[in-house]
Amino acid sequence: MPETIDLNADLAEGFGQWTLTDDDALLTTVTSANVACGFHAGDPATMRRVCETAAARGVRIGAQVSYRDLAGFGRRAMDVPPDELAAEVAYQIGALQAFARAAGADVAYVKPHGALYNRTVDDAEQAAAVVDGVLLALGAGTPLLGLPGSELLDAAEKARLAPVAEAFADRAYTPRGTLVPRREPDAVVHDPDEVVERAVRIARDGEVTAADGRTTVPVDARSLCVHGDTPGAAALAARVRDALAAAGLRVEAFA
Amino acid sequence: MPETIDLNADLAEGFGQWTLTDDDALLTTVTSANVACGFHAGDPATMRRVCETAAARGVRIGAQVSYRDLAGFGRRAMDVPPDELAAEVAYQIGALQAFARAAGADVAYVKPHGALYNRTVDDAEQAAAVVDGVLLALGAGTPLLGLPGSELLDAAEKARLAPVAEAFADRAYTPRGTLVPRREPDAVVHDPDEVVERAVRIARDGEVTAADGRTTVPVDARSLCVHGDTPGAAALAARVRDALAAAGLRVEAFA
Amino acid sequence: MPETIDLNADLAEGFGQWTLTDDDALLTTVTSANVACGFHAGDPATMRRVCETAAARGVRIGAQVSYRDLAGFGRRAMDVPPDELAAEVAYQIGALQAFARAAGADVAYVKPHGALYNRTVDDAEQAAAVVDGVLLALGAGTPLLGLPGSELLDAAEKARLAPVAEAFADRAYTPRGTLVPRREPDAVVHDPDEVVERAVRIARDGEVTAADGRTTVPVDARSLCVHGDTPGAAALAARVRDALAAAGLRVEAFA
Amino acid sequence: MPETIDLNADLAEGFGQWTLTDDDALLTTVTSANVACGFHAGDPATMRRVCETAAARGVRIGAQVSYRDLAGFGRRAMDVPPDELAAEVAYQIGALQAFARAAGADVAYVKPHGALYNRTVDDAEQAAAVVDGVLLALGAGTPLLGLPGSELLDAAEKARLAPVAEAFADRAYTPRGTLVPRREPDAVVHDPDEVVERAVRIARDGEVTAADGRTTVPVDARSLCVHGDTPGAAALAARVRDALAAAGLRVEAFA
Repeated sequence: MPETIDLNADLAEGFGQWTLTDDDALLTTVTSANVACGFHAGDPATMRRVCETAAARGVRIGAQVSYRDLAGFGRRAMDVPPDELAAEVAYQIGALQAFARAAGADVAYVKPHGALYNRTVDDAEQAAAVVDGVLLALGAGTPLLGLPGSELLDAAEKARLAPVAEAFADRAYTPRGTLVPRREPDAVVHDPDEVVERAVRIARDGEVTAADGRTTVPVDARSLCVHGDTPGAAALAARVRDALAAAGLRVEAFA
Repeated sequence: MPETIDLNADLAEGFGQWTLTDDDALLTTVTSANVACGFHAGDPATMRRVCETAAARGVRIGAQVSYRDLAGFGRRAMDVPPDELAAEVAYQIGALQAFARAAGADVAYVKPHGALYNRTVDDAEQAAAVVDGVLLALGAGTPLLGLPGSELLDAAEKARLAPVAEAFADRAYTPRGTLVPRREPDAVVHDPDEVVERAVRIARDGEVTAADGRTTVPVDARSLCVHGDTPGAAALAARVRDALAAAGLRVEAFA
Repeated sequence: MPETIDLNADLAEGFGQWTLTDDDALLTTVTSANVACGFHAGDPATMRRVCETAAARGVRIGAQVSYRDLAGFGRRAMDVPPDELAAEVAYQIGALQAFARAAGADVAYVKPHGALYNRTVDDAEQAAAVVDGVLLALGAGTPLLGLPGSELLDAAEKARLAPVAEAFADRAYTPRGTLVPRREPDAVVHDPDEVVERAVRIARDGEVTAADGRTTVPVDARSLCVHGDTPGAAALAARVRDALAAAGLRVEAFA
Repeated sequence: MPETIDLNADLAEGFGQWTLTDDDALLTTVTSANVACGFHAGDPATMRRVCETAAARGVRIGAQVSYRDLAGFGRRAMDVPPDELAAEVAYQIGALQAFARAAGADVAYVKPHGALYNRTVDDAEQAAAVVDGVLLALGAGTPLLGLPGSELLDAAEKARLAPVAEAFADRAYTPRGTLVPRREPDAVVHDPDEVVERAVRIARDGEVTAADGRTTVPVDARSLCVHGDTPGAAALAARVRDALAAAGLRVEAFA
């Protein structure tokens, strides 16, 4: 049974005039901030502000790297050649690092966003390219967040990055332990009480009930992802955090 | 009389499929490489390659920061609010830093590109914003290249950056010592022999003949900019370098 | 005393995942829809949807053209050379025309957005370039919305476009009849009752009280702009429309 | 034996400061100009200029539509949802239409570029989305260029567009009649004499020898694509045209 659990959320996902995530509220709750780096969202001024707030509150800063796709919010998979993809990942991390350092912190981990996250579950070539980009920008030992069993975490392991498995309290799992694809009905758990309950069970017991309602699936995760781009997201994240603490878990950034 | 002179050129000014500057040839000649950072030109894979070549050859790496304007190649002045501009400058420097570090080097200086360069000659607010961005990303003491007498170098001085004055061997000067605007005829010196001769005179004697053909203008510069985006640019840069050496000057990066 | 008045608002100002204007609600109120065309906002799918709804409800479709500046929402003035600017304006209008035509309508007028709107009040060169772009895409006779007395409307007049003067119910006017710049306090009228009252007075009486509280300023406008990018914007627009009707004015698209 | 053959080439593939295709030279040779529309290349001023030259020389204007991917030159396949893809296609066509109309011509056909061309060979969903976009912007009967046997031409046929099969004189064919993928060696025929000979054989005899050197493959094409983005491309295109004429074929735009 794990004694500590990390809470991560996607932040800085506005762009210029547009806002999406309630950065300030979420930064009172999460322990790890996945900061958008300008390719799917995240203008420089917002990145700077989020880094400053995160650093001031002791929230760990991570680079949420993406395909270059503002129009599609990084949700459209792209066949980016490995060399280009590695360089694009390093570019984003480096840009964020400027703001993290200026705030007295560091980019402490990396997490792919959207289609790049999903693609690198199964695509070994792109997974390796993301890992190359992380190595290029931050070097060996850097934590990389992803799904347990993904090509991404495999590639991270082989390249001596530090793979960190995460779980989703608000996503349905198949009996095999993978996420139910978003395009299917019931892929997302909407009931706040259920989300809170699942979060505690994953963090404390390392398991969750699959979408079939019967199978208990083991979920080995050092971090829980809470979503920040829906109304009420910040409030739900706070409830999750409180419930985790009430269940005797220490909510803190992964080691 | 200066004993050493730096040669800088704009590099990495392609974008994806498009190329512009003959990066590889210029990196055999210049001592300081102004690397485009993705806002007016410079895709991540090109930035990486140029940093690797520059580092391997001992050429100093600088961030050539710009307005966000791929369509206009950074040549269209923009009224960017100071906070946004500072953050955009830091973003670009940070992105380049990832590639410089990966190549075993560092972003050693900053130079604004195109319209941002021209605007910050007279616009104190934008000059201060650029300086803020440099401070944010690289801290005090960072060299900032610009025109002598510009608001940019004034702001750099006040903020404890290291202002570095540069001159242009292929640009005509007014009797007051400013550059003849590009839109005027004879703004650019096209004759290679004349460019070479002017380069030597600026570097060795600290002076140049103004566009009126009579006035001798003092030019106090620690770096000479050679252009890299025209046919024959690399060959001309090599001639300039050879002539400087033949005139007894050491061509090396500014201290 | 005018018998009819047009109500225009900026619409389609989201981009991909981001939304800003309450397009559907505003399309129940306004008679002219200034549709963003992708340069400061407005992704193609949103442009299509807004054109379809506007056409279905008989709302006139106009092209809200802008500088190419997603990051700055078109609010950063740019020194775009006239030939480029004219082509950029025509490009945006043409793109919107595809969706207007597909919906059985037409791009019936043009209105510059943000910094391009403000710049062309006084900048004759850019005003002429916008007019050239409109001529290129839609030909002579096309209505062009702008401030009375602006270079834009002057250039439109000379080029045989149809200049249409507009007024702002929620903006303060100087005693000379120009808008109080946004950077000054009290540039915007926030009290809904006052906005409604000013709208009626402008439309019915052709005058408004200036920011000094004393001077009565003549305002000759055939269209009133209501803003769509603030909370409560749609409700306020509906109130304005009702008050105009109650004052005996016919609210309909300008002839 | 066909009596006429069309010659098409990709044009306007620069962007701002960057150039790629020798537009002016190719417009003396080809009968159909695939004009880039801004998503993978093609700034508005270049689109305008190419449309004016094409119209003046009687060259047919087509919209070369692409994924939104300047950084990858439209060569990176993207999982764009059908509704977004259709709207993006219509947007590009509409933008080009503004310049075609201003030049006294019309967008007379559509051809997908790069990864969108390749993807819609086999991807029925994206092929249908491209067809939807063409219908939206130009309506039924519009010619759509593509590979014979592709999902794209099938979808065009079903939707009452006019499918037009094209062939490539400089690409190797498999014994089954498909193109040898670019990533394989010998995918491209580099010898100019061979390119010319193949062009004539395809146009006159409707056949070509496959990459195995033995199999004769039937190629039923009403248009031949010549490439414009390599050195010597314009000269080679002119040789192809002369050889076609010498072989008794009329080189003219497809009916």
